[in-house]
Amino acid sequence: MPVLRSIRERFERERPLDGVRVAACLHVTAETANLVRALRAGGAEVALAAANPLSTQDDVAEALGDVADVHGRRGDDAAAYAKGIAALASGEPQIALDDGADLIAATHEQLRGGIEETTTGLVRLRAMDLACPVLAVNEALAERAFNDRYGTGQSTLDGIVRATNILLAGRTLVVLGYGWTGRGVALRARGAGASVIVCEVDPLRALEARMEGFDVMPALEAAERGDVFVTVTGSRGALRGAHFERMKDGAVLANAGHFDVEIDLAELRAAATGGVREVLPLVEEHVLGDGRRLHLVAAGRVVNLAAAQGHPAEVMDVSFALQALAAEHLAGADLGPGVHAVPPELDRQVAALKLAALGVEIDTLTGDQEAYLSSWMPRP
Amino acid sequence: MPVLRSIRERFERERPLDGVRVAACLHVTAETANLVRALRAGGAEVALAAANPLSTQDDVAEALGDVADVHGRRGDDAAAYAKGIAALASGEPQIALDDGADLIAATHEQLRGGIEETTTGLVRLRAMDLACPVLAVNEALAERAFNDRYGTGQSTLDGIVRATNILLAGRTLVVLGYGWTGRGVALRARGAGASVIVCEVDPLRALEARMEGFDVMPALEAAERGDVFVTVTGSRGALRGAHFERMKDGAVLANAGHFDVEIDLAELRAAATGGVREVLPLVEEHVLGDGRRLHLVAAGRVVNLAAAQGHPAEVMDVSFALQALAAEHLAGADLGPGVHAVPPELDRQVAALKLAALGVEIDTLTGDQEAYLSSWMPRP
Amino acid sequence: MPVLRSIRERFERERPLDGVRVAACLHVTAETANLVRALRAGGAEVALAAANPLSTQDDVAEALGDVADVHGRRGDDAAAYAKGIAALASGEPQIALDDGADLIAATHEQLRGGIEETTTGLVRLRAMDLACPVLAVNEALAERAFNDRYGTGQSTLDGIVRATNILLAGRTLVVLGYGWTGRGVALRARGAGASVIVCEVDPLRALEARMEGFDVMPALEAAERGDVFVTVTGSRGALRGAHFERMKDGAVLANAGHFDVEIDLAELRAAATGGVREVLPLVEEHVLGDGRRLHLVAAGRVVNLAAAQGHPAEVMDVSFALQALAAEHLAGADLGPGVHAVPPELDRQVAALKLAALGVEIDTLTGDQEAYLSSWMPRP
Amino acid sequence: MPVLRSIRERFERERPLDGVRVAACLHVTAETANLVRALRAGGAEVALAAANPLSTQDDVAEALGDVADVHGRRGDDAAAYAKGIAALASGEPQIALDDGADLIAATHEQLRGGIEETTTGLVRLRAMDLACPVLAVNEALAERAFNDRYGTGQSTLDGIVRATNILLAGRTLVVLGYGWTGRGVALRARGAGASVIVCEVDPLRALEARMEGFDVMPALEAAERGDVFVTVTGSRGALRGAHFERMKDGAVLANAGHFDVEIDLAELRAAATGGVREVLPLVEEHVLGDGRRLHLVAAGRVVNLAAAQGHPAEVMDVSFALQALAAEHLAGADLGPGVHAVPPELDRQVAALKLAALGVEIDTLTGDQEAYLSSWMPRP
Repeated sequence: MPVLRSIRERFERERPLDGVRVAACLHVTAETANLVRALRAGGAEVALAAANPLSTQDDVAEALGDVADVHGRRGDDAAAYAKGIAALASGEPQIALDDGADLIAATHEQLRGGIEETTTGLVRLRAMDLACPVLAVNEALAERAFNDRYGTGQSTLDGIVRATNILLAGRTLVVLGYGWTGRGVALRARGAGASVIVCEVDPLRALEARMEGFDVMPALEAAERGDVFVTVTGSRGALRGAHFERMKDGAVLANAGHFDVEIDLAELRAAATGGVREVLPLVEEHVLGDGRRLHLVAAGRVVNLAAAQGHPAEVMDVSFALQALAAEHLAGADLGPGVHAVPPELDRQVAALKLAALGVEIDTLTGDQEAYLSSWMPRP
Repeated sequence: MPVLRSIRERFERERPLDGVRVAACLHVTAETANLVRALRAGGAEVALAAANPLSTQDDVAEALGDVADVHGRRGDDAAAYAKGIAALASGEPQIALDDGADLIAATHEQLRGGIEETTTGLVRLRAMDLACPVLAVNEALAERAFNDRYGTGQSTLDGIVRATNILLAGRTLVVLGYGWTGRGVALRARGAGASVIVCEVDPLRALEARMEGFDVMPALEAAERGDVFVTVTGSRGALRGAHFERMKDGAVLANAGHFDVEIDLAELRAAATGGVREVLPLVEEHVLGDGRRLHLVAAGRVVNLAAAQGHPAEVMDVSFALQALAAEHLAGADLGPGVHAVPPELDRQVAALKLAALGVEIDTLTGDQEAYLSSWMPRP
Repeated sequence: MPVLRSIRERFERERPLDGVRVAACLHVTAETANLVRALRAGGAEVALAAANPLSTQDDVAEALGDVADVHGRRGDDAAAYAKGIAALASGEPQIALDDGADLIAATHEQLRGGIEETTTGLVRLRAMDLACPVLAVNEALAERAFNDRYGTGQSTLDGIVRATNILLAGRTLVVLGYGWTGRGVALRARGAGASVIVCEVDPLRALEARMEGFDVMPALEAAERGDVFVTVTGSRGALRGAHFERMKDGAVLANAGHFDVEIDLAELRAAATGGVREVLPLVEEHVLGDGRRLHLVAAGRVVNLAAAQGHPAEVMDVSFALQALAAEHLAGADLGPGVHAVPPELDRQVAALKLAALGVEIDTLTGDQEAYLSSWMPRP
Repeated sequence: MPVLRSIRERFERERPLDGVRVAACLHVTAETANLVRALRAGGAEVALAAANPLSTQDDVAEALGDVADVHGRRGDDAAAYAKGIAALASGEPQIALDDGADLIAATHEQLRGGIEETTTGLVRLRAMDLACPVLAVNEALAERAFNDRYGTGQSTLDGIVRATNILLAGRTLVVLGYGWTGRGVALRARGAGASVIVCEVDPLRALEARMEGFDVMPALEAAERGDVFVTVTGSRGALRGAHFERMKDGAVLANAGHFDVEIDLAELRAAATGGVREVLPLVEEHVLGDGRRLHLVAAGRVVNLAAAQGHPAEVMDVSFALQALAAEHLAGADLGPGVHAVPPELDRQVAALKLAALGVEIDTLTGDQEAYLSSWMPRP
């Protein structure tokens, strides 16, 4: 994680979080440990609670004991989770890093600021009467453009190929939803030799997909043409009974959205009057009344996590680097209460560090160019 | 111009501009005539002055006499231009469509609202103490994403090929600046078989270029590798003496930015101690001291206009459709003074009409999906 | 023409055609002049007759008088053409360069060898009882892969855009025929943002198109979907009445094949019961009975020549370089009578010279690798 | 395996191999079983010996006992292998399907014909004084274009990503060798967002890579730029000490060629004076003297087999379909002794069946077009 490492090195020199109490409710993994160590290098006192007992790596929790106060172990129950949040709250944190908004909800009245990394958490926080500023890190451009498009784009197809061993070239792949992740999936599918169809409800996104050379059509029409379907709409029932009815024998169904509601599993099982059987470890064959077979990957759960390794570490590197910079920003800036966008300057800092990690150098403006761009009137 | 036509047809039925006095300072061309007729169909009284005497098509000016009050003819001088603006101002317009901000500057105190279509005009308006709202149509997403990326992307390479008859495949093409237009040029150059290098000063843009698979490097390094250079930075001196010194014999230099300042022409001439000669109608060969030859296309003026036909009519269609909808919006909404972004809803309307013109249908959300997306908590 | 120039420089040193009598029946253009000078530099005595009086550049014919015996001027009639061939034949040529096979047909009994550069000529020669070897230069891989795919791919779309000013992004472009040129057109159309459909009769080519991610379907089905149609089948009637009947209003029809028979012009005119009119200099609008309009580009003639500048000079450079090397090969080798493929070694020589012209360096095998590759048994 | 299935169904009806004795020395896998059943459906008597004891699936061997005479089990030694070949030879086969040429070498004097599926086997057979015809199925276009390019292209990158969890976007990937497989790897790497460099020794291939927009340069230069290296040259030592010396810290080395000789493992170990350690199950880190780390994937063995699942079943489907048709062809045709190319007609048959399996329909020539194409003179 070279981006986070370079931030950590700067933090060691500059100590921007000296004495700041940071509470974090995050997945306790090796990547998170790197974030904690970077915050600590910046001078923060860090307390950490496990956001999810299933993802907790106990060895990481142990090892972090040296630098942070860690709550939660693998397999904890809901009560232990609540206890962890309470423990963090009782430490009078000034900055909270959160994954789902429970910690911020419990502490916002005493916080200098919060950082929330999930869409779900932001929906909750926007519905609250927040007493402190919260930075929406997962809406930052570096996060959306980099992680969602390139990270999830690659890993989604990776998951489908691992589960099914399908050759993408020559297939028609239907992407439902052309947000950042949908763009990534469509781009990579074309890059793998598939003919790509995009389905969308937003005309501006649909137009963009069309101008990129993708076929764009209603999902009911696409249902008849597709060999592989990937849902990434953020909504539910993107594929449902009416679509299953029209699909070709052998169609593959996968979901790249966060929740397993994008493929309507109840309607799929209802349509499978010919039975359901596992044909490969992560592939269930649903036999329709007329004998057509639909192959559901990973039970409709988010396929890059369920069937591949999720994000590459370098994608987490960018995400956590953004969180470290967001914490530094909150410590120094004076923002009003409510959800705030991450300042573009932080996006640029992360991008600059990532370029350095890739060994890529770029230009800077000359003094003459800066003067020109800031002049009242850019006429020659 | 099917998008504008469909707006005109709706305007005829709905008359959203009934009795509204609209003044427009625009290029007097066949495309503009379509915009004027659409506004008129909406019920507006329209007065038009020529924004530029060189682009004025006198036959269009004549023909428009039936539906609008038209000022200016081809070849007019500055005094005639000023007189045209004054004539528009004296008509007590309520809405002003402008190209460069002179009309809005002269009338903003009496306007309900203005629409400005150039970056230069917006720079001026933002520096003013505006008394009315102004919509920044050239910053709308439909305009940037559609026109700048796809329209200018294609026409820039078209201009270079027409001028030089070069085969792009196998060449290294350097794009300086990775804004919307730069993205379009880079994308189309790769699509034409070129190996593409991107030079940027903004790390976020540079990172995106890199993640798209382009080589990213400082311009001084790119100078040694490129066969064709395209400037589209919006700044000046993107290519200058230090770059010319390092370029390969036979390098082609073209500018896709608005002004002819991106290639430093004075430094190019200074470097050409071996002389300058026209080798093709739009190509000047500059011979450097050591015999290397650099080929400047269209004297460094914006190459898609200077060497090809500028934007296809369908690109103007989208731009002018946005202006018609912006006028309707100003007539109906109550905005405070200052420069405003075009509401995303207008972008979507234009995109929807453009999709219809392309014969592309898209999905709509089901009631169930709408409910899900607006629910407090998007958990299954 | 740097490739041909480097051959000429070697020929000057090595004189591989010393005293060889070469007769050439070719288009008399500036590019041909370069070929003649290269042959001459190699020691050949060259006589030249104009293959086509319409393409003859009289100034070139004059200028070549110093180094070759030149027959034919612009506007000559068939008798003059026959006289030119006869004059060449009477010179007792040893090697003949031909464009259509008339010269070789007249001289093959006395020739050491011939070189034919058209498919049509080769069809004739293969049907003859040839007394000498003939090299089929236009079937060489360097020619097909380089010129047909990349040269014609770019210039075909260039011709369509120049004639119609259409934006390719967002359009559906149908390529009929997926030979070398069809591949080039399909590749470049996709690179320009079009959604591409390929129609083929050969299943292997169709499968390859499909594996590249193109949609593949029968032309009757594609007729309903396409916005732009490009024929490049080498056959006739690729687009005919049954297709015109199904096309969308506004469809654009262009031919990239050698002859103007690929779009059935008689059936198109018969279908245009609503009339035909020129809407742009090179675009004829055909109005069908129900009001749909089909736009024919360049009267169905080969669109890269008729509406753009044909091949870039660098493409001719590769073609003529191959002819020069073919002449050298015939002078030195002992081939039996009949049509022969160009030896791959000549393809490689031309490719190596072209790479040098592009400034590209490549690897060579180490001695160890050569030994490995030529060993009886490539096991480790 | 729908292609092979459709051949089997036809074979059942037509019985083209009625009574023909077929011996096959192949990997005993589920895919091979399908081939055996297809041959059997065509009327052949089939005997099978395991080509490799490591790949033998004993359950398949058992199950095939009903339809074929099967020799060999998993873990057999060399003597058992020799015994299997001898058993096949003693059955007086008329047609032999081989993987490495041992069976054909032992039986060619009695064979009607042989089919060899490896390059290595063909090298051996071409060096022999063959008494029967042998069809070189792995040189067939359907095999090279389809399997090598699209199958291996995808699975090679799949193997690298599975082993390393690397994000390909933003990386520079160097492909050494631009044959069919190299093309596939380069194409897919670009499609995944990598910047691709190609290294070649053949100028024609190098030129084609360059015209496709790839950077082309000597391997020593590429060594300094690459993040990921993939060898697919068919030769040895494509990457060796001189390259390792120049590589960046963290470079990933993978081999997609058949043998593990393309990366010089001895020189790599010699360079790793800082030690070698496993950092992931299939990744060995080699630490050079100056601390740079090179990551070798799968010990330099062919990465799509060693780190992923090899070819998708549909790729084997095409390969084995070709073998079934080759057997039918040998039974019916009268070919002279020696290695023969697979007739293009068989390529087309397989392609047509594969298109049908993909649900793709194509055109056929009209009578008029056939007449035109076969006419002496294709002038309008």
